[in-house]
Amino acid sequence: MSSHDSIRAIQWKEGTLILLDQRLLPSEEKYLQLHSVKEVADAIRDMVVRGAPAIGITAAYGVVMALTNRYASAKNWNSELESDLTQLESARPTAINLAWSVRKMRRVIQDNMENPIDAAFSLAQQIHEDDLQANRHMGELGSSLLDNQCGVLTHCNTGSLATGGYGTALGVIRSAYAVGKIRQVYADETRPWLQGSRLTAWELKQDNIPVTLIADGAAASLMSQGGVQWVIVGADRITANGDVANKIGTYSLAVNARYHDVKMMVVAPTSTIDMNCSSGKDIPIEQRDPSEVLSLNGQRIGPDDVDAWNPAFDVTPAGLVDAIVTEQGIIHSPNVDKLIALMKNSS
Amino acid sequence: MSSHDSIRAIQWKEGTLILLDQRLLPSEEKYLQLHSVKEVADAIRDMVVRGAPAIGITAAYGVVMALTNRYASAKNWNSELESDLTQLESARPTAINLAWSVRKMRRVIQDNMENPIDAAFSLAQQIHEDDLQANRHMGELGSSLLDNQCGVLTHCNTGSLATGGYGTALGVIRSAYAVGKIRQVYADETRPWLQGSRLTAWELKQDNIPVTLIADGAAASLMSQGGVQWVIVGADRITANGDVANKIGTYSLAVNARYHDVKMMVVAPTSTIDMNCSSGKDIPIEQRDPSEVLSLNGQRIGPDDVDAWNPAFDVTPAGLVDAIVTEQGIIHSPNVDKLIALMKNSS
Repeated sequence: MSSHDSIRAIQWKEGTLILLDQRLLPSEEKYLQLHSVKEVADAIRDMVVRGAPAIGITAAYGVVMALTNRYASAKNWNSELESDLTQLESARPTAINLAWSVRKMRRVIQDNMENPIDAAFSLAQQIHEDDLQANRHMGELGSSLLDNQCGVLTHCNTGSLATGGYGTALGVIRSAYAVGKIRQVYADETRPWLQGSRLTAWELKQDNIPVTLIADGAAASLMSQGGVQWVIVGADRITANGDVANKIGTYSLAVNARYHDVKMMVVAPTSTIDMNCSSGKDIPIEQRDPSEVLSLNGQRIGPDDVDAWNPAFDVTPAGLVDAIVTEQGIIHSPNVDKLIALMKNSS
Repeated sequence: MSSHDSIRAIQWKEGTLILLDQRLLPSEEKYLQLHSVKEVADAIRDMVVRGAPAIGITAAYGVVMALTNRYASAKNWNSELESDLTQLESARPTAINLAWSVRKMRRVIQDNMENPIDAAFSLAQQIHEDDLQANRHMGELGSSLLDNQCGVLTHCNTGSLATGGYGTALGVIRSAYAVGKIRQVYADETRPWLQGSRLTAWELKQDNIPVTLIADGAAASLMSQGGVQWVIVGADRITANGDVANKIGTYSLAVNARYHDVKMMVVAPTSTIDMNCSSGKDIPIEQRDPSEVLSLNGQRIGPDDVDAWNPAFDVTPAGLVDAIVTEQGIIHSPNVDKLIALMKNSS
């Protein structure tokens, strides 16, 4: 069974949210059962679940959980719920899918004050299912851009673990591999959190897609040797002008891709597009704890008392992006007019 | 006491070569005592000692050890010695300082067949001492290129541990910091071997020079924010046209430096320059074991049976290098004519 069928990173069972603890992969497959909105916010912040679309889906179920608890226990449930929603929204700042999902959930609750729980649960399921469908569609769209027998390089993890299933960038890789367009996948290990080694390599191995890991610093050398024709990545937020916030290291790849005439593809559902941000300068970049750079699984790798700078994301300007692939279509050489036109079609 | 005074990565005591085991730093300061040329070759291959100049110095002492053993035990000591020298030369392929050092040692032995041991030992000490002096001189030359209060980014480790003392790129950083030209040092952690976290941060902390570690993938983002004015690195081999082989990840920095208008300085003694290689295409790039990418201090970080590509070095073309700093002087915008002119002054 392939990983995008078998891996269920996010499940809802009778009021409990079950998350695969991605911090322990690939050495351990452990599922956490969450029962409160605080536990959900903590799980997002601590990266039990990560990946912009997966965070959005998780938050939607978190809202259902919060609503169920508040609705049963209090008269002024709506105002108390609002504090839960704020807690969820602030769990991580960069991926806009989180705010997008909470905003949609808030609206459906306000539109169904008489019977909010059913409406909210339906929407959460819909967000989850829509994401999976969007990924499958983006997979086909993105695959259409590739010639046969490409080498592709990806960064971070954008697969079943990062989404509602199948994946964004990894969905394109799955679709393209299935039709013979990919010869070899290279995966950046993606320091400091090692999403590439721990998650992407693990997913691709399960699907029997040939994957070779590289240290992030080796990508430029690989490009100079002609090993890759496309860099394919996901996004945590895309601004109105087409700038892309994604996992730290993406921008370096984009600069090197342009230098080596390698194409750069960003794959993300329209829920990742934030038309309220005019450019990448407006995106809040999450700074994470230096310990992520200074240690690995609790094992110290640097000296004591040394400082580290650990931004979780960087911003790639639109001018370095060859194509943004969404479930609403492909944008080549993105700019604000093309983004506005695309988003007119989205809810 | 500062680290470049206190750290003695390579010591010779009464026929024994004592090496600080750099694989265990910074958590453990352990010294290995080597008594045979095979042990010396293994220590170079296994990276007990690393850094192009340090490898050259270690090999010189290895030749003394081999000569002492062969001379005492065999009539045809000279031909048996040659097999030892070949063993040393082939321990690692990319850093030319290794071959340079063995060639110098071979010549002094052939020129002093009546009393080779004294001559060889004197030369080994001279190579060691000359490297230290070269580093101090390069430190001043390189520092002269910097404006005041720069941010600088370095990669790998080029300090006392990598040389006869003081350091190449780190020597420039030490000299420049001492005269107020450096505000802040950023150090790439330098995957997969983590020379930046384990060695460079450790050395700089001991000298109280402000250092901030970053994941290799964060360098581009740092440059885009104006955090650094110079990238300062060492080299394992510089070819006749000015191409530079250095630790994997250097080339990515050079591409990003040019893109962001950050200057690129390569600091290396003339023993690193190989006029027999016309360009970087001729440099043998060492491929190391995938396990260096797939694990860390014996701790597995990727899934089982996954592949990794692990070149130890990459090549930065001369066109991306703003200055090569040697003990014989500075070359701006290196090319073959400037390299030829410089090397006329070197032995």
